[in-house]
Amino acid sequence: MLPDRAVAVVAFGGGHGLFASLSALRLLVDELVVDDLTAVVTVADNGGSSGRLRGEFGVLPPGDLRMALAALCGRNEWGVTWSRVLQHRFAGEGEMRDHVIGNLLIVGLWELLGDHVDALDYVGRLLGATGRVLPMALVPMDITAEVRGLVPEDPDALVAVRGQVEVASTDGIIESVALVPPDPPAAPKALKAIEAADWVVLGPGSWFTSVIPHLMVPALRHALVATDARVVVVLNLAAEDGETPGFGPADHLRVLAEHAPDLRVHTVLADLGTAADELADLESVVAAYGAHLVLEDVAEAPGTPRHDPLKLAAAYAKIIAGTA
Amino acid sequence: MLPDRAVAVVAFGGGHGLFASLSALRLLVDELVVDDLTAVVTVADNGGSSGRLRGEFGVLPPGDLRMALAALCGRNEWGVTWSRVLQHRFAGEGEMRDHVIGNLLIVGLWELLGDHVDALDYVGRLLGATGRVLPMALVPMDITAEVRGLVPEDPDALVAVRGQVEVASTDGIIESVALVPPDPPAAPKALKAIEAADWVVLGPGSWFTSVIPHLMVPALRHALVATDARVVVVLNLAAEDGETPGFGPADHLRVLAEHAPDLRVHTVLADLGTAADELADLESVVAAYGAHLVLEDVAEAPGTPRHDPLKLAAAYAKIIAGTA
Repeated sequence: MLPDRAVAVVAFGGGHGLFASLSALRLLVDELVVDDLTAVVTVADNGGSSGRLRGEFGVLPPGDLRMALAALCGRNEWGVTWSRVLQHRFAGEGEMRDHVIGNLLIVGLWELLGDHVDALDYVGRLLGATGRVLPMALVPMDITAEVRGLVPEDPDALVAVRGQVEVASTDGIIESVALVPPDPPAAPKALKAIEAADWVVLGPGSWFTSVIPHLMVPALRHALVATDARVVVVLNLAAEDGETPGFGPADHLRVLAEHAPDLRVHTVLADLGTAADELADLESVVAAYGAHLVLEDVAEAPGTPRHDPLKLAAAYAKIIAGTA
Repeated sequence: MLPDRAVAVVAFGGGHGLFASLSALRLLVDELVVDDLTAVVTVADNGGSSGRLRGEFGVLPPGDLRMALAALCGRNEWGVTWSRVLQHRFAGEGEMRDHVIGNLLIVGLWELLGDHVDALDYVGRLLGATGRVLPMALVPMDITAEVRGLVPEDPDALVAVRGQVEVASTDGIIESVALVPPDPPAAPKALKAIEAADWVVLGPGSWFTSVIPHLMVPALRHALVATDARVVVVLNLAAEDGETPGFGPADHLRVLAEHAPDLRVHTVLADLGTAADELADLESVVAAYGAHLVLEDVAEAPGTPRHDPLKLAAAYAKIIAGTA
């Protein structure tokens, strides 16, 4: 059944969580449920291949952008092969070890074309991508966190931790995150996409380092608060050592609300199995947010931390159709 | 005027010389003078980005292959942009310095696809390339040279020099070159292309390190001796410090004949201005080879060592039409 009008979706996140969400949303484009798909991607990574390239050239860390593009690749031999090439990581023991080809290609396109968005569009065209990939900001960002529990003699002392890798692997408890610089320029096309969107999807993904950072970019947050789009928050399936140890679904939502109290959330999507243990708590946090809770089986398998693209697509389709 | 039948051309060389030759030949494809164009490229480089990748991964040095592909890129915004991306060399002072994006992409495709020729075809499709690019051999090669004049106390002593960089920059006089390994596997598609060719073009290019090495691959040389294709030798416009100091056109042809006495050469193309000084000498060497001498103005400008693609294309067209 075709929708009455074009449906535009903007998905926010980074890393493997966004990859899963985009893998689901692109299926909805194939199924004509979604007409226009835009990904907005964190650019705060300071580790691995991305961190090395950022350090060497002062560019945006390309890794999460590359992964989002790969998720949207055309489902034919050409698109899938180039996606695999872009995702290919060099092995061995030499200077190229752990560099990822797509990262190098994106950095080269940035150097040549001088425009972040044009360059990402070129890679998208190469892949026959279903949708567009944009950076969260047009300058490289650092995530900083206020972390409790790092000073043995004063367990309540707050310590500032800087860097995505450092925040994601802290031994303490993250109280809040912020960005440096605090008011980076956003991509105008991202702001336009948010304004024109029917649905905005936040998460899943590393909560403090891939999901919440979008809300810390003032221009993006103002656009998200102002848009008529309905906001869907997709909760993680598991806690992550380092940034969200012991977190259940309600905890994820709670810290999101603390970081963006002015954001209106329309729907919270949680995994049925994951949420079962603490349903009352989750329901009360969702209700306090004025949102609608949708519980669906969206895990790859019971107990795994990974979303299944087909199940997630089915859940998104129900939410968009208003039947969830 | 359309030719009576499809015309197939195979061009041999490496580096900037092959780039110039392919830039000319692709114009003949656009003009419907040539229907099928194949480049066969040296894979003996051991310096720069190619040498580093060869050292790190044990792969074919990709640089000359990448340059040949770039020469054949589609002449539209897409092809030209990707060609520029492939040719882009990282600057700066970090670990990526001097690496070339196309080299990294080709190595990644080799790792992923496990087949040299398939991978090069993929890059060719990306560029909308006019023609196919094949390696001279399916294993990395080393050039070795017997060099005279390196031992001050015995000026006639022959010293073995190994490596393309070392041979190209020797202070002595190169007597002969050979390959290690001496009998590498050739690409079957290169052998088929030679068999089916109407014309074979050898040179221009670094004479001892990019042109003659093809004739030192036994399988290629047997194919070149056996084919019905007419062989055109394109002489360089200038001597090169290191490998061909003081060489005039006749010297180039003389050492080629010494390395491949069984090769039948149909046409020798020399630049009118370059050959003027020693025309009698050149004519006698060409006659001894049983070949036909074509003199044309093919230099970018008088005295420059670079071939002009349009002038070279015009000369090739006359040779192919039999009007030169």
